[in-house]
Amino acid sequence: MNLEIIREISTPSPTKIVLLVIDGLGGLPNPETGKTELETAKTPNLDQLATKGVCGLIDPVSPGITPGSTPGHLALFGYDPVSCNIGRGVVEAMGIDFDLGPGDIAARGNFCTVDEAGQVTDRRAGRIPTEKCTELCRLLDGLVIEGVRLFVCPVREHRFVVVFRGEGLAPEVSDSDPQQVGVATRAIVALNPQADMMAAIATQFVAQAKKLLAGHYPANMVLLRGFSQRPHLPTMGEVYKLKPAVIAGYPMYRGLAKLVGMQVLETGASIKEEFVTLKQKYADYDFFFLHIKGTDSAGEDGDFDRKVRIIEEVDNTLPGLTSLEPDVIVVTGDHSTPALLKGHSWHPVPILLYSKWCRTDRVGEFSESACIFGGLGRFPATQIMPLAMAHALKLTKFGA
Amino acid sequence: MNLEIIREISTPSPTKIVLLVIDGLGGLPNPETGKTELETAKTPNLDQLATKGVCGLIDPVSPGITPGSTPGHLALFGYDPVSCNIGRGVVEAMGIDFDLGPGDIAARGNFCTVDEAGQVTDRRAGRIPTEKCTELCRLLDGLVIEGVRLFVCPVREHRFVVVFRGEGLAPEVSDSDPQQVGVATRAIVALNPQADMMAAIATQFVAQAKKLLAGHYPANMVLLRGFSQRPHLPTMGEVYKLKPAVIAGYPMYRGLAKLVGMQVLETGASIKEEFVTLKQKYADYDFFFLHIKGTDSAGEDGDFDRKVRIIEEVDNTLPGLTSLEPDVIVVTGDHSTPALLKGHSWHPVPILLYSKWCRTDRVGEFSESACIFGGLGRFPATQIMPLAMAHALKLTKFGA
Repeated sequence: MNLEIIREISTPSPTKIVLLVIDGLGGLPNPETGKTELETAKTPNLDQLATKGVCGLIDPVSPGITPGSTPGHLALFGYDPVSCNIGRGVVEAMGIDFDLGPGDIAARGNFCTVDEAGQVTDRRAGRIPTEKCTELCRLLDGLVIEGVRLFVCPVREHRFVVVFRGEGLAPEVSDSDPQQVGVATRAIVALNPQADMMAAIATQFVAQAKKLLAGHYPANMVLLRGFSQRPHLPTMGEVYKLKPAVIAGYPMYRGLAKLVGMQVLETGASIKEEFVTLKQKYADYDFFFLHIKGTDSAGEDGDFDRKVRIIEEVDNTLPGLTSLEPDVIVVTGDHSTPALLKGHSWHPVPILLYSKWCRTDRVGEFSESACIFGGLGRFPATQIMPLAMAHALKLTKFGA
Repeated sequence: MNLEIIREISTPSPTKIVLLVIDGLGGLPNPETGKTELETAKTPNLDQLATKGVCGLIDPVSPGITPGSTPGHLALFGYDPVSCNIGRGVVEAMGIDFDLGPGDIAARGNFCTVDEAGQVTDRRAGRIPTEKCTELCRLLDGLVIEGVRLFVCPVREHRFVVVFRGEGLAPEVSDSDPQQVGVATRAIVALNPQADMMAAIATQFVAQAKKLLAGHYPANMVLLRGFSQRPHLPTMGEVYKLKPAVIAGYPMYRGLAKLVGMQVLETGASIKEEFVTLKQKYADYDFFFLHIKGTDSAGEDGDFDRKVRIIEEVDNTLPGLTSLEPDVIVVTGDHSTPALLKGHSWHPVPILLYSKWCRTDRVGEFSESACIFGGLGRFPATQIMPLAMAHALKLTKFGA
């Protein structure tokens, strides 16, 4: 559904929606048992919610498409993930609470290792500790190149963000990160004439960084990618008339949520702490996006059993959410991350929606194979928000 | 999914995809047994593949829309069948390996019978043998009308192609074929001013053909339809980075496949011969479109039992495909052709997808009624290629 139409028919109300995103939730069957991670996990609380609610399967972007975290989450928030695709630099900047101005250009940076010939030998500089990253960022931060002010801010381990602030910058430049080792870093080139100045300044920055980092092996060079500008998305407040908040231990997801106008709530990063934060702040907002990262990380590591355990931990903690009696609870993922594939995948993601007003189906367990038969069917993730809003009685009739 | 995005995220790899199209596969239940053609046929091999794979139902164009062969196949290849609709003349020209130039206009022709009053008495001239058609085409071929060169080439039986090559031609002219008997042939008129010259030349061609064919009863006149120009479709090589090939005994399907850049493989026309061709050429390509025509012809003839037998023959021959162990096997049809309707229909078409990476469902037989409960759900046929590509691990992640 078109956001303009949702904006017209949405209406504020005291009802509350909780969107629980179990990152990378969907899986593939363990060849030995024929059961996915979610099907293997003991999840009595999720199964009860599935029994009382209505289930289905979502396609985050489109069948066959493996989404990155950004399109996966934008779709969950109701934004078209194709037309709203957002650069990595912006996402990382948002994740560290960097207040990006409208003309700022952000890029994602890695500290990396290069050998004497200038070839990249480690794209992550041995995953230096965050403290070292912070120290190195201080070396580079505050440079001014041809009138453009640079901000260099640590993220975590080897990762940092660089923000270029000045007149006449455009984001259409290529990455310096070759995305492989054994080759030199790439020249940053303008992809259109408007970006010539940006390419020149980024190139100078890389040269200066190389000099300043010379004595800091293994972090003796930088790699930049995802030069991008903050997009102008309508906020969830504008579209849905919601007062939304995000509870996420991992910076990138807070950044994504901020991009659509969510308030970031201070929280500990464990599952238990996130649910405690929800309880503490429950009175203050009417929409909560609660993000669980561990399932995706376990899937990416190929650790089937750990993913099972984290799903079980979420299930154990779930009464902390259900006892608050939200009007609408949605549980799903931003994409599948099967341990078998050790990465994001294209497979559809189970979803359950619970509300006093849902039309229940016959699904009695929250699993990939049961959700095939759910009353929500298989549908694009962008339709979740209209469904959640409807079940919270926050959408008025369309048309006379 | 937008082809531009698929083009960005597709990547070459050694994995192989086989798309087995059983033309007109979907059916309607025999009132005596309550079973469709596919449900009546004994198909142990397809059922086994359905058990190991994942099933669903496709809509070739859109629910309720009965597709012609061209949109049905374009959708299977991932091209939007509405915006890419291709004229019949072009499809026929492609099917006989006619090398259409960018400005050429092609029309499908029938030799037909007209009586002394000029009324059509047989739109197919008693289905004259191909040899006779070839002889008559030689009579008409090579005419030059107002500087426009005409190519008249036999297809099969009463069918031929005429290609107009010259400056200033446009395809927007009406058909001369009235699509019924007992009426006169229609005047060819321009549907816009740019096509005035085309209409004039086609009208002169029809007049000259009438004179030249006067002594060749029953083939004493021509009917023309589907004036059209070769469209500019991106090839499957460009979009998917595939090296694709077609195995089809029937010219039109080879023509369609060529239009999207597939290599045409020489093959015998029987099911067995087509599977032998697949085996012989298996090493040389990474995508095979294998087309089975007989099911559609049987459906068009209203011959329920023959359609059943042909499906059983495909099933018998299937080990010739599965023994090659393609990474992805897709079995489906371009539309339904229920014997009860004696023609193409709008009913959704069963699909099965087998791959090491598919998330299996509980479907244990390949049939219309079982596929309703498949894990792929019901979806537009244009999504088959992204799904096949994903399961062959040929698509990279979309977005950061």
